[in-house]
Amino acid sequence: MTAETDAPLGVAVIGAGYWGPNLVRNFRASPEWDLVAVCDLDTERARDVVGAQGGAGAGIEVTDDLTALLAREDVVAVAIATPARTHRALAEQALHAGKHVLVEKPLADSVEAGRAMVELARRNDLILMTDHTFCYTPAVQRIRELVEDGSLGEILFVDSVRINLGLVQPDVDVFWDLAPHDLSILDYVLLGGLQPIGVAAQGGDPLSAGKSCLGYLSLPLAGGAMAHVHVNWLSPTKIRQMVIGGSKRTLVWDDLNPQQRLSVFDRGVDLIQQSVDSADRRTASINYRLGDTWAPALPEREALGEMVREYAAAIREHRDPATDGDAGLRVLSVLEAAQTSLRAHGALVEVETSAPMLEIVR
Amino acid sequence: MTAETDAPLGVAVIGAGYWGPNLVRNFRASPEWDLVAVCDLDTERARDVVGAQGGAGAGIEVTDDLTALLAREDVVAVAIATPARTHRALAEQALHAGKHVLVEKPLADSVEAGRAMVELARRNDLILMTDHTFCYTPAVQRIRELVEDGSLGEILFVDSVRINLGLVQPDVDVFWDLAPHDLSILDYVLLGGLQPIGVAAQGGDPLSAGKSCLGYLSLPLAGGAMAHVHVNWLSPTKIRQMVIGGSKRTLVWDDLNPQQRLSVFDRGVDLIQQSVDSADRRTASINYRLGDTWAPALPEREALGEMVREYAAAIREHRDPATDGDAGLRVLSVLEAAQTSLRAHGALVEVETSAPMLEIVR
Amino acid sequence: MTAETDAPLGVAVIGAGYWGPNLVRNFRASPEWDLVAVCDLDTERARDVVGAQGGAGAGIEVTDDLTALLAREDVVAVAIATPARTHRALAEQALHAGKHVLVEKPLADSVEAGRAMVELARRNDLILMTDHTFCYTPAVQRIRELVEDGSLGEILFVDSVRINLGLVQPDVDVFWDLAPHDLSILDYVLLGGLQPIGVAAQGGDPLSAGKSCLGYLSLPLAGGAMAHVHVNWLSPTKIRQMVIGGSKRTLVWDDLNPQQRLSVFDRGVDLIQQSVDSADRRTASINYRLGDTWAPALPEREALGEMVREYAAAIREHRDPATDGDAGLRVLSVLEAAQTSLRAHGALVEVETSAPMLEIVR
Amino acid sequence: MTAETDAPLGVAVIGAGYWGPNLVRNFRASPEWDLVAVCDLDTERARDVVGAQGGAGAGIEVTDDLTALLAREDVVAVAIATPARTHRALAEQALHAGKHVLVEKPLADSVEAGRAMVELARRNDLILMTDHTFCYTPAVQRIRELVEDGSLGEILFVDSVRINLGLVQPDVDVFWDLAPHDLSILDYVLLGGLQPIGVAAQGGDPLSAGKSCLGYLSLPLAGGAMAHVHVNWLSPTKIRQMVIGGSKRTLVWDDLNPQQRLSVFDRGVDLIQQSVDSADRRTASINYRLGDTWAPALPEREALGEMVREYAAAIREHRDPATDGDAGLRVLSVLEAAQTSLRAHGALVEVETSAPMLEIVR
Repeated sequence: MTAETDAPLGVAVIGAGYWGPNLVRNFRASPEWDLVAVCDLDTERARDVVGAQGGAGAGIEVTDDLTALLAREDVVAVAIATPARTHRALAEQALHAGKHVLVEKPLADSVEAGRAMVELARRNDLILMTDHTFCYTPAVQRIRELVEDGSLGEILFVDSVRINLGLVQPDVDVFWDLAPHDLSILDYVLLGGLQPIGVAAQGGDPLSAGKSCLGYLSLPLAGGAMAHVHVNWLSPTKIRQMVIGGSKRTLVWDDLNPQQRLSVFDRGVDLIQQSVDSADRRTASINYRLGDTWAPALPEREALGEMVREYAAAIREHRDPATDGDAGLRVLSVLEAAQTSLRAHGALVEVETSAPMLEIVR
Repeated sequence: MTAETDAPLGVAVIGAGYWGPNLVRNFRASPEWDLVAVCDLDTERARDVVGAQGGAGAGIEVTDDLTALLAREDVVAVAIATPARTHRALAEQALHAGKHVLVEKPLADSVEAGRAMVELARRNDLILMTDHTFCYTPAVQRIRELVEDGSLGEILFVDSVRINLGLVQPDVDVFWDLAPHDLSILDYVLLGGLQPIGVAAQGGDPLSAGKSCLGYLSLPLAGGAMAHVHVNWLSPTKIRQMVIGGSKRTLVWDDLNPQQRLSVFDRGVDLIQQSVDSADRRTASINYRLGDTWAPALPEREALGEMVREYAAAIREHRDPATDGDAGLRVLSVLEAAQTSLRAHGALVEVETSAPMLEIVR
Repeated sequence: MTAETDAPLGVAVIGAGYWGPNLVRNFRASPEWDLVAVCDLDTERARDVVGAQGGAGAGIEVTDDLTALLAREDVVAVAIATPARTHRALAEQALHAGKHVLVEKPLADSVEAGRAMVELARRNDLILMTDHTFCYTPAVQRIRELVEDGSLGEILFVDSVRINLGLVQPDVDVFWDLAPHDLSILDYVLLGGLQPIGVAAQGGDPLSAGKSCLGYLSLPLAGGAMAHVHVNWLSPTKIRQMVIGGSKRTLVWDDLNPQQRLSVFDRGVDLIQQSVDSADRRTASINYRLGDTWAPALPEREALGEMVREYAAAIREHRDPATDGDAGLRVLSVLEAAQTSLRAHGALVEVETSAPMLEIVR
Repeated sequence: MTAETDAPLGVAVIGAGYWGPNLVRNFRASPEWDLVAVCDLDTERARDVVGAQGGAGAGIEVTDDLTALLAREDVVAVAIATPARTHRALAEQALHAGKHVLVEKPLADSVEAGRAMVELARRNDLILMTDHTFCYTPAVQRIRELVEDGSLGEILFVDSVRINLGLVQPDVDVFWDLAPHDLSILDYVLLGGLQPIGVAAQGGDPLSAGKSCLGYLSLPLAGGAMAHVHVNWLSPTKIRQMVIGGSKRTLVWDDLNPQQRLSVFDRGVDLIQQSVDSADRRTASINYRLGDTWAPALPEREALGEMVREYAAAIREHRDPATDGDAGLRVLSVLEAAQTSLRAHGALVEVETSAPMLEIVR
């Protein structure tokens, strides 16, 4: 690591709509980064984003000319915060120009597009990162540690509930709107990423909105384990809860309880012994543990600040970021398979994953 | 109705195992009933049940001779609390003897057996009642009222969660152990009973116990509505929660919060208008209501006392009880269809219901 | 009311420290007000406050010359956000210059100073308002309505708890730091304001910080009622709860439960009849009501915006604001009496209130 | 200690009213005890208590003749569950007869009576135990361990809340009805027992019931620490919460949350250093810790069973029981001092404790 690598990296934000300003603010606040430009077809909007955040904004270019922007040598990396259908074209243009690319979730609007992006980045030896922001919250970071260090044991089940009174989106259903959060978290905390045996989706459209307004995803995992996601726009009570049942301990994440977001229960069920009797029936002795509960303290930290730090670290250390393009692709694959399952009345549908990924898992 | 009908009705309890003593206690405490006998092959056990409850127990016969018992003229009705596989034979014997029959849930161990019982009772003009105890709790009684009087509007979705650290049962899976509670409640509170379009079941067996230890039932209802049940033996946190989303109001029943079991939210989503534009896309205007919450007071009352009262009333008034044989049969039908769905990896399976029932619904 | 009165009122904020920026932001955002100047001895700090909020800040004077500022004719009113010990001198200067005055809480650092301010404002026919911000939250506004319209009946008791892990303040104890919130709320919601028979204070200093770090105020009210305040800097659990027991209904305000901040319980105790028997003992028949609970919906609204609106309305309508100088004086009086009680080991100490106020009460 | 001491101890229960049956049931269930008699002036009531609990009740004498009972040699100990005003006379009679004595709380109806009982037991070398049942719950037992082993550090404050909608008692006020629970727990968990510097009591009687229906006790402890008790019959929400703030950790006991009764917060405030500056003002550097929370698992165990076990152990081991006569006397002393404080409008009143006890403290 030379002194040069410690200089801030030049970055440009593409897209000044809903999410862009958050990226602009965090790149500016980070000592790792030097925000050099904001690009949007609507340059007035881009100028507002730069100006509204106080200070001179001196030195930050506002432009609608992406080609010129990508020609700038001081731009090492870009962050794309535009509609999903435009992600592939913009990312490919940037990757061809030799820039590292961060893409707002979802990675793309189809598995096909996502895979093309992943492969191009790999060929060009550039970083492709998906902005799965939730993975950088202190709670999810801690959950991953607890899975990795074996505190929970083997994962037996994950049950995730994300329901509230939400806007019925004009262009996407409740799965595409809310489930990416749950799926990206699952992908982040499960060892080897989210690799379900299949997906079965059930949706409800009781208001005849023309799309699912509430729904359930069942994701059987290897070894009889099961992940399940409940998303719902129509619930007057807001619930953001994930239960991760492990063979050693079980974790409950209640994101709406700031006083005790994470609880780790040293309780569980063990199948102590198991035999097959003469009648070919399994018999089992079950052991229940009723131990203490433990709520780890969590730091107060903005997830997006952590995310841009990881982006810089991945570039400097020439390694995959924690939420890379493959992670984005795995989430896309589940969403597409869920769509297929919905059309098949909930039949279990295999998740299309590339061979290289399967090799990683096995 | 003559004065005679107000005299206590003679009843015998068949089965002195786990549930029998509860029935004995409630029949004894009820002014509507005169408990005349307890029948069990293990007469010592039966004697304990009669004796342990104080007093002389004078006049209560303890017997293992069912035929003699059913020949007694003062026995108007029986209550069967034996293993499910014996329900059909015992109920048929009692019905042939002209006795009204109450059966502990589940009604039988198969739809075929249950239907035979229902049909025999109907032919003999006798009451066949299923002891769906939960339906007689003050909370469920109130929920039914709120559905019936239109307070909730049309039912859009029902989400029921029943999870805790539970015993892995030797003979049944988690669906047969826990879901009958949720299904019987759904059957009781939904107008016309539980008549799903189909059932899709997903189960997990992460301990290799040879059966599902956690699982999910999706029950699409008419009009795009959806009921869903989550049962789990492996969760260290206990949750007993049902959310019933209606077009007017939404109800949350949290059975573990004695200070506020029921909450009725005057909040919801309305699809005000809906049109199909030139591009053949539906557009919708959504209206959100954020009104008050209301928690009705509930009386303190034992459900089983209410249940035996209903049994007596149905006999006296010569009408179907609130949880009749058909209700038990509908629950059985869903459980059987769920088994089929499990074997088909979660495919949506039609629920076998008898023609007469379908006629009622349509 | 002429058209002129609808023009924005010119206001200057004095003090650009901790609270000043909040006032600046809300005066700017309000159509009722025209912020014409910010005054601070540290003009750089004042300039930052004006500039940091985007836009040109054109037309907003930044000055350290209070005399010149008060000579401006377009300044109709001032808002003082400086340390409490400076409130009296600044307010008197502004009142002599004919300006209406809003003062950050507490009104002053002594009852004597506060009374002088109240009397000067009255003599000069000018508004003196105390910024009791909490009184303008949707929750407190609704509580006041429920007391005023008789929904709660007569107030029997008020129990307020405000505890958390807080900074041990260098200059004030926990009573002066936290209790003004509770006392100002009590003053706002009780009919006729907070007029206790006396104050008894108990404080604890277990860390030998030289001041109370936790404490209790008992405030006996007329008719046997009781208000009580618990403040604590040393509690790891945060509680913000007020229970208002009324003869008809009881209200619980849990400010940390955004899903149900206010609960109104239609439960309570009535003393139905009461007689004195021959042995001169009172006998009473008690009636318990166990009715529904009701949680009124509350709008999302910033309290400070509502407060500056009330300031403008009081000036335009030439009336006392909801939290006037007398309100600030009543809170001060209780705090001073509490100090006296602390020195007297918790003896009940009369609250010094001016004769005119007493006349209002009796 | 000979083998003989392991034989069950003969015990008689005096009083078959409200609490007596609970004692009867637990003495019977305990292998340490042999219940030989139940004594009540109303022998029919006594007979019901013996008979209602099933079995023959053979060998259990039912009597109204206390003198004869106390003459029985197989009666080693008695348990008194009669009205408080009769405790002294009955206990003295039993102690004179050489029997160990357990007394239902409160120990007596006055400090004078209580002290006479304690002294007589001491002179006669007999056990005098107070039935402070709550001290034998798993939660309180665990709290005492955490105080004793230093996990909490020095106790800085204790705040106990015990409020609900309760019966207005005909003969006692809310302090005598509810506070004995809190005071006996405080006495049990604080090292050296409850030895406050004084007591200040504030009561409210908003219904003109002729006695306090809600009230507050402040109990300043040595070193600036403070204990405080809030009891209330008029609250529609039920709260049973005790916060014990320590210099190392803080414990919250929420008795209505069966899923997490005890929470131990590794959070707190330290006064790191403290100096007196030139202006004679203390300055302090405060350190905040924000560590994990830990909820110890608690066994399910009936408190009364544990209490009768301790009674037997104290007799066998010839030692003071955990809740001895002195403990009962300390609780009585606080209650009497609180009455005096109430009459003195809340002034701090010294607690009358015997000289020997004071020596222990100083």
